[in-house]
Amino acid sequence: MNKISTAPLSGFMELSPSDQLEFDRIKDVIRAEHVKRGFLPIDTPLIYRSEVLLAKAGGETEKQIYRFDKGDNDLSLRFDLTVPLARYVVDKQSELNFPFKVSQIAKSYRGERAQFGRFREFYQCDADVIGRGSLDISYDAEVIALVDAIYSQLEFGDFTIRVNNRKLLSGFIDAIGASSKAGEILGIIDKAAKITPEEFESEIRGLGLSDDGAGRLREFIGLTGDNTAILNSLEELNIDNEVYRQGLSELRAVISLLADMGVTKTVRVDLMIVRGLDYYTGTVYETTINGREREVGSVASGGRYDDLASNYSSENFPGVGVSIGLTRLFAALKGAGLVGETKQTPVDVLVLPFSSAEFAYSYKLADQLRAEGKNVDVLTEDMKFGKKMAYADKTGVASVVVVGENEVKTGDTKIKNMKTGQESQLDTYSDS
Amino acid sequence: MNKISTAPLSGFMELSPSDQLEFDRIKDVIRAEHVKRGFLPIDTPLIYRSEVLLAKAGGETEKQIYRFDKGDNDLSLRFDLTVPLARYVVDKQSELNFPFKVSQIAKSYRGERAQFGRFREFYQCDADVIGRGSLDISYDAEVIALVDAIYSQLEFGDFTIRVNNRKLLSGFIDAIGASSKAGEILGIIDKAAKITPEEFESEIRGLGLSDDGAGRLREFIGLTGDNTAILNSLEELNIDNEVYRQGLSELRAVISLLADMGVTKTVRVDLMIVRGLDYYTGTVYETTINGREREVGSVASGGRYDDLASNYSSENFPGVGVSIGLTRLFAALKGAGLVGETKQTPVDVLVLPFSSAEFAYSYKLADQLRAEGKNVDVLTEDMKFGKKMAYADKTGVASVVVVGENEVKTGDTKIKNMKTGQESQLDTYSDS
Repeated sequence: MNKISTAPLSGFMELSPSDQLEFDRIKDVIRAEHVKRGFLPIDTPLIYRSEVLLAKAGGETEKQIYRFDKGDNDLSLRFDLTVPLARYVVDKQSELNFPFKVSQIAKSYRGERAQFGRFREFYQCDADVIGRGSLDISYDAEVIALVDAIYSQLEFGDFTIRVNNRKLLSGFIDAIGASSKAGEILGIIDKAAKITPEEFESEIRGLGLSDDGAGRLREFIGLTGDNTAILNSLEELNIDNEVYRQGLSELRAVISLLADMGVTKTVRVDLMIVRGLDYYTGTVYETTINGREREVGSVASGGRYDDLASNYSSENFPGVGVSIGLTRLFAALKGAGLVGETKQTPVDVLVLPFSSAEFAYSYKLADQLRAEGKNVDVLTEDMKFGKKMAYADKTGVASVVVVGENEVKTGDTKIKNMKTGQESQLDTYSDS
Repeated sequence: MNKISTAPLSGFMELSPSDQLEFDRIKDVIRAEHVKRGFLPIDTPLIYRSEVLLAKAGGETEKQIYRFDKGDNDLSLRFDLTVPLARYVVDKQSELNFPFKVSQIAKSYRGERAQFGRFREFYQCDADVIGRGSLDISYDAEVIALVDAIYSQLEFGDFTIRVNNRKLLSGFIDAIGASSKAGEILGIIDKAAKITPEEFESEIRGLGLSDDGAGRLREFIGLTGDNTAILNSLEELNIDNEVYRQGLSELRAVISLLADMGVTKTVRVDLMIVRGLDYYTGTVYETTINGREREVGSVASGGRYDDLASNYSSENFPGVGVSIGLTRLFAALKGAGLVGETKQTPVDVLVLPFSSAEFAYSYKLADQLRAEGKNVDVLTEDMKFGKKMAYADKTGVASVVVVGENEVKTGDTKIKNMKTGQESQLDTYSDS
């Protein structure tokens, strides 16, 4: 009989239970930190009428989308969590309190060409704060503090949250008289970290700016120093532009609020952060693990947007958010050897009865250990005892308890640490 | 401007944050109990080549499936968690330990006609134990004990797990010489609880059994008493059939093992439980909340199957599992007034600074309370103070801390219980 292939489709991550455990641990840290800071979890549908999903999507997204007809409906799978959130906020606004702090940890789908590090099915962990009419700048700092708290707990190494402000960039470009080339200039800044200084210089020359304009752009991008020094230098550039001043004032406020929150060590003003051309309008940020910038890429990014739901409502919903692309992140961390190196199981104690005569005692013992907060499994499959020990070994469980005739009779039961081989007495009961 | 409708598609459940919290609480109880008993969480893709998903699916399922082409691929969304699991087990068998105890809590999709209580997108919470070659009967008892533990914690009321064995049914039907009508007889038994005794009797007569056969069937189905009494009666029927004897012996073993696990009060042998015609081959069970049998329906059901993965492997993988249809369950519980009656928030304490001058103090206070394990939010949106209190009230938060000029200066800070209005001193610091 010809059997059907069981491999997942290319671009779909499917993990062994051991890797899944590590994946879920990261997801749970993120989720717990969202909740600890008052972001409310929601769960939106995966399937929408295509007109709802594609209201804002551009050409590239539209090509990637999974779209199909069912009955009379033209349907699509969501390709991010932002569009579902936008319509959720409009649909449920009477039940929500604004500012609405919201957490979404779920899968999205893009049928793009499969390539290394790209996934067609991927988890995003989004935290957003949505205002109605207005949203205080303090929330920009709050989502950055959230990133700091998450990566401090995850311990993948020291990390840097690079913060910029899009108003600063566009005000500056306007001030040097290069507004008509804003898109190109932002594009060059965006890729500056990935090209050589020579290539960068050649791109700048290719813009056809005036000598003065090009010089000021180089000066702007070249500003270095600690956060205070950069903020002061930005002041001293004496740019006479309202949008620039507003951007600078917002950036100052965010850095200062972060200091109020005790977040200083990991945050760096970085004028090269752009985050795409269309969506963000103020604060933007990316996060990298120090020394793994290229290898792992940004591990948390986001920013401020003027209006979440312009396609669905005439009311204004400004917001600020951060997204962790967990599937891509996990693949990158695994590639870098930062996760998934050791066999894991959620089981703390495995109970091994010799035979079915010891099941009853083993079940009671398991319940007793569970009541103490441990995760406990009992291996009752009919196997030779050597195979049972091999099973214990293969799962990577930390401790086993062997239950034989004598344990049942006397209650004299020992728990064995599988790493050290050390045995210690269990405080238990006897059947006699 | 014509705005696009934001309502979810019909058949898609989308909850307010307050209801979502209750939904997630139930989901977390189920997930935690799975892990506590050694079921390993896995996460499978949502999209498959249609030939993989439809290998086992019948005509009705095939009509309901969301199916579409992407590039050269004929793809479908999963319609349950069993088919994805079957191919996972075959695909990853070298990395798994058997018996493989596995937990899946995820959404599936069926584009069926929308009707009350039916969902096109729905969560299932599945726990399965998969053997390779063989699987001990003790695991049948173990998944039932899992259901008992879950519903004991959820406290939706007393509940009954009704247990039967398909071998008992089919052996009995064979013994009365009615094998050719097995499907019809099982169908009648399956719906017996939903029809009147007169209708039931007429259905039995309609089968065209011999008088003796019909009489014995009535006797079999009519057996009553506690578990021991029914098991003894089944013995005393003196059915000379190997399959019947095996079914009875399995049912006895399951009830006895459950007693070893301390699960007796909630388990009842019920000869009317069938669980569909195709899939299950041994132990079967359903669970109902006492007094809500009709209104809420089965809240956890499953059973033993001979071969999980016959379409994907020539090796034999027998298994036993239980599934909780969480989306349908939640809708039914809400309909019955058993959940979602009170406003909820995960936030334990809401900190309300009077103005931005108190942000720094408020942030520090929030971190201090978070370090004590509380979920804490700080409301920093620029609002009149009365609006801030109204916000606190509307979210349903249990406690608030108001931070004004005086609190910052003296550190004399009080936490207020929003229900009782009672204030108590917070052990905190001052800025001076």
